[in-house]
Amino acid sequence: MRLMSATVIAYDGGMGRWEPDARGRLAKAALELYAAQGFDQTTVAEIASRAGLTERTFFRHFADKREVLFDGSDALRDLMLVAVADAPESATPVQIASAAFEAAGAAIQQNPERARLRNAVISANAELRERELIKLAWMASAVTDALRDRGVPEPTATLAAEAGVAVFKVAFVRWVASTGDLTEIIRETMGMLADQVAYTREDRKARDRVS
Amino acid sequence: MRLMSATVIAYDGGMGRWEPDARGRLAKAALELYAAQGFDQTTVAEIASRAGLTERTFFRHFADKREVLFDGSDALRDLMLVAVADAPESATPVQIASAAFEAAGAAIQQNPERARLRNAVISANAELRERELIKLAWMASAVTDALRDRGVPEPTATLAAEAGVAVFKVAFVRWVASTGDLTEIIRETMGMLADQVAYTREDRKARDRVS
Repeated sequence: MRLMSATVIAYDGGMGRWEPDARGRLAKAALELYAAQGFDQTTVAEIASRAGLTERTFFRHFADKREVLFDGSDALRDLMLVAVADAPESATPVQIASAAFEAAGAAIQQNPERARLRNAVISANAELRERELIKLAWMASAVTDALRDRGVPEPTATLAAEAGVAVFKVAFVRWVASTGDLTEIIRETMGMLADQVAYTREDRKARDRVS
Repeated sequence: MRLMSATVIAYDGGMGRWEPDARGRLAKAALELYAAQGFDQTTVAEIASRAGLTERTFFRHFADKREVLFDGSDALRDLMLVAVADAPESATPVQIASAAFEAAGAAIQQNPERARLRNAVISANAELRERELIKLAWMASAVTDALRDRGVPEPTATLAAEAGVAVFKVAFVRWVASTGDLTEIIRETMGMLADQVAYTREDRKARDRVS
């Protein structure tokens, strides 16, 4: 019983009676401090103090300082998997992968200030950039698996998911520097990729006709 | 003078008078041990012993155990940058990025047994997989910079380089499981990507015509 209630507290998302939205307050305080003074320079004590909470409460919600920046990855991946599952029968693998990244984009777009602040913090720190890269690869791998579950064969499934990653990375950088909608920018960037590789395709077709 | 001769020894690639190809012998011994008993389970002492050399010699050539697996990255990147610089004026950004990864592929193809053994070692270890991912991103970033140097604007440069990464990753996995030529498989995979995204493009054109 003890273990069970501890688990409930740890996963209550800060909605408990004594700490209304403790998790959200901690995350906001952490992000502001990371942005203002750097990730490495910020201590958990400072984060807790800024949020008006204790270090113990911080560690009830997050394993460490870094976790604050990456704890949304699971939710994003789940949204992507739903998008893959919900894509129409007629969609091509690349269109399905694109829909998955568009779903992630739509979620990010709901709190653009947070996403931009988070991006600034991560961009400023080599270790965090590496972690972000690994999380993105992990998402691509989940999309690949979901495509395979839909019956997409290899290497088509991996190629579609990796094309999605390529497009998402470029689209995200464009979005950070713009005032546009991330989902729309992802779609547009996928179109740019299609235009770019089309030349390769036409070249190859021309070569095939000759040979 | 002292510093200079120390540098010469450290960078002599094992071609010194006292240790003919020490570097190559150490790298071979390390790879064989990593493959046979696992990366984490292998000590520098074992590597040195298998190569008939001392630990001190190992550390003259490699900073640590991991370095043995990744010390070829600089040379690969340099080959890729030469390929970008040498691509004809008429080549599209994606074709140039593809040429860069094909050049890396040609180098890897020169020692396929080593590449396949190295891949098996890296695939079996989460930390090494992350390191490989980061090295690949670093190569993509070098290709992006080289494309920009050729006057390719953003986001075209990044998109071309990232498409190259997507293709290379898929091509490499296909190559490991095949007896084919890596350069040829990279070219073929780029064609597959072109075919896959072509649908997206034709859809969009159809939509543009309607609206």
